Amino acid sequence: MAQPTIGHLDPVFVALMDEIKDLLRYAFQTSNALTFAVSGPGSAGMEMCFVNLLEPGDEAIVCINGVFGTRMKENVERCGGTAIVVDDAWGEPIDVDRVAAALKQHPKTKLVAFVHAETSTGVQSDALTLCKLAQAHGALSVVDTVTGLGGIPVAVDQWGADAVYSGTQKCLSVPPGLSPVTFSDRAVAAVRARRTKVQSWFLDLSLVMAYWVGDGARSYHHTAPVNALYGLREGLLMLREEGLESAWTRHARMGSALAAGITAMGLGLQVDDAYRLPQLTVVRSPEGIDEAAIRRDLLKNYDLEIGGALGAWAGKAWRIGLMGQSATPRHVLTCLSALESGLIAAGAKASAGAAVSAARAALA
Amino acid sequence: MAQPTIGHLDPVFVALMDEIKDLLRYAFQTSNALTFAVSGPGSAGMEMCFVNLLEPGDEAIVCINGVFGTRMKENVERCGGTAIVVDDAWGEPIDVDRVAAALKQHPKTKLVAFVHAETSTGVQSDALTLCKLAQAHGALSVVDTVTGLGGIPVAVDQWGADAVYSGTQKCLSVPPGLSPVTFSDRAVAAVRARRTKVQSWFLDLSLVMAYWVGDGARSYHHTAPVNALYGLREGLLMLREEGLESAWTRHARMGSALAAGITAMGLGLQVDDAYRLPQLTVVRSPEGIDEAAIRRDLLKNYDLEIGGALGAWAGKAWRIGLMGQSATPRHVLTCLSALESGLIAAGAKASAGAAVSAARAALA
Repeated sequence: MAQPTIGHLDPVFVALMDEIKDLLRYAFQTSNALTFAVSGPGSAGMEMCFVNLLEPGDEAIVCINGVFGTRMKENVERCGGTAIVVDDAWGEPIDVDRVAAALKQHPKTKLVAFVHAETSTGVQSDALTLCKLAQAHGALSVVDTVTGLGGIPVAVDQWGADAVYSGTQKCLSVPPGLSPVTFSDRAVAAVRARRTKVQSWFLDLSLVMAYWVGDGARSYHHTAPVNALYGLREGLLMLREEGLESAWTRHARMGSALAAGITAMGLGLQVDDAYRLPQLTVVRSPEGIDEAAIRRDLLKNYDLEIGGALGAWAGKAWRIGLMGQSATPRHVLTCLSALESGLIAAGAKASAGAAVSAARAALA
Repeated sequence: MAQPTIGHLDPVFVALMDEIKDLLRYAFQTSNALTFAVSGPGSAGMEMCFVNLLEPGDEAIVCINGVFGTRMKENVERCGGTAIVVDDAWGEPIDVDRVAAALKQHPKTKLVAFVHAETSTGVQSDALTLCKLAQAHGALSVVDTVTGLGGIPVAVDQWGADAVYSGTQKCLSVPPGLSPVTFSDRAVAAVRARRTKVQSWFLDLSLVMAYWVGDGARSYHHTAPVNALYGLREGLLMLREEGLESAWTRHARMGSALAAGITAMGLGLQVDDAYRLPQLTVVRSPEGIDEAAIRRDLLKNYDLEIGGALGAWAGKAWRIGLMGQSATPRHVLTCLSALESGLIAAGAKASAGAAVSAARAALA
């Protein structure tokens, strides 16, 4: 990203855009022609999916099992759509049967939107089944995999997903600011068949396409964040060099080791093994301990940031990320040591060393 | 921008956001509390102004004297507003009298939108008069100064402007991807008085405010592009170290020197001296010369990118930017030498050396 900025229509830059599209197709496991990076954070990628696929009056099923599902509902409503909410408890995956029932009850559903890897709860949902279910009912699927991409299997073509967005700052280890997206031919057809203009000019796919796709000549839409895209290219190259399967295995190993350490420390995991994300572990903080003070301590004394919990879990849990370049044994062990020492300093019961030993055993 | 990424809610980062707000207030010459950088390019900054200030059914006067005025009209219409267009010829500034007439004819006008420094034509319009005129009629003003900020006087408080957006990649010499914006108290009051939700969740000012402003606790809205903001801070620090007045004088001198050289070369300037932007000079390309081939030649042989013209001027003119760190004598002389040699190689009439001599004289 510290390379000199070149023009956003420079032939060298256009070649770099093509390379990024190919690398993203690999990361998303798709052959979708329309695969690129939105010039804004994940929230912009989310909004690009909804404003292009929905028109006023459309019905959308929105699955909510955490913060980011709630945002999808906001998006649907701000597009003039009607959100049919399928609610699941925080910490639980999306209940496929209830989505099926909602689809039966609302046969005009235009799309089904859900979060593959909920960043607020650390839960993975069954993207394959949900996408296939939507497709069987003639609905499109919109998938949030901001935290999933590069950390756990994302297989856009196998899923049959129609619009998928992600972020750069999670398992790709690229600075924040861009949102990788991919759209199936069905999604593109739905955009082409719109009766109304997309409400956002900045996120209008038909205009953005002319810049990112287009044979030969690219027409100017907005000025792309050139240096940020250098960073994305590098992160994607690193992912391809490691190989997707290796990256998934690495995240899985580190997540297991962290969980073993946390359990050995006597702390509880908020999410069941069966659907816990390896790259994001939600840990119950001990009763009587100021969890925010522990986070400040870790940041100050270990230069280590762990996340606070959101929503109903705020003040009661931590969210520990092991994503991309931070999913390494060193990070796991440092985090466990730091957390243990912070808890002991704060007067909590914690047997020094037990966590790290358990994690080491899991990594061996 | 190559510094390590830190958390977007890290106390160190929150302090950096405060510093950026102060530096932007200096650049914009405003004391507006709501002054920050949108996490997207100038097009996102433009859209943030319109989606927050307009509601369906509102009337907006849009001044169009180039490409970017046309985009404002698109924005108004996509917000469900009615655009009352005041059209001026390409290469001319906005006709203040016609805007006054439109305001009289449309007393319910919610806002007047115009481009201060048109990037497509190189023309400066009279922002002070236009903002005062809007205010006198009880309308808000929305000002595009993407190309203006840091290059020519921008005085938001003196103008009485209500919503102003810019970009980082023009006279601030910061990589593209962010859009500095500032909103007056009147604009904030208009947002607070809305009857409907803002159609964009990503650009909803009331939500973004809670992250960028907020006393003490900042609430998470989206993940800010941390490294891009490091870059903006550095560019703004450089501007403050030089001083706004010095930066304006430097741009004015370089623009004059380039114009002198272009004239000495026998080429025509597309815009009258009285309102030509010093940082963006539109030059008529000689008849019978393939202007795109000249641009390719300059890029290949001099690593120098000059812009093609847009709209009605496409294929007939060049747009030469001398912005921020590229507004120096070296850039002026290199550009003139390169253009002269490219034209001679292409068989155009051009007296070798005349342009550079004239520019040197202007710079002396």
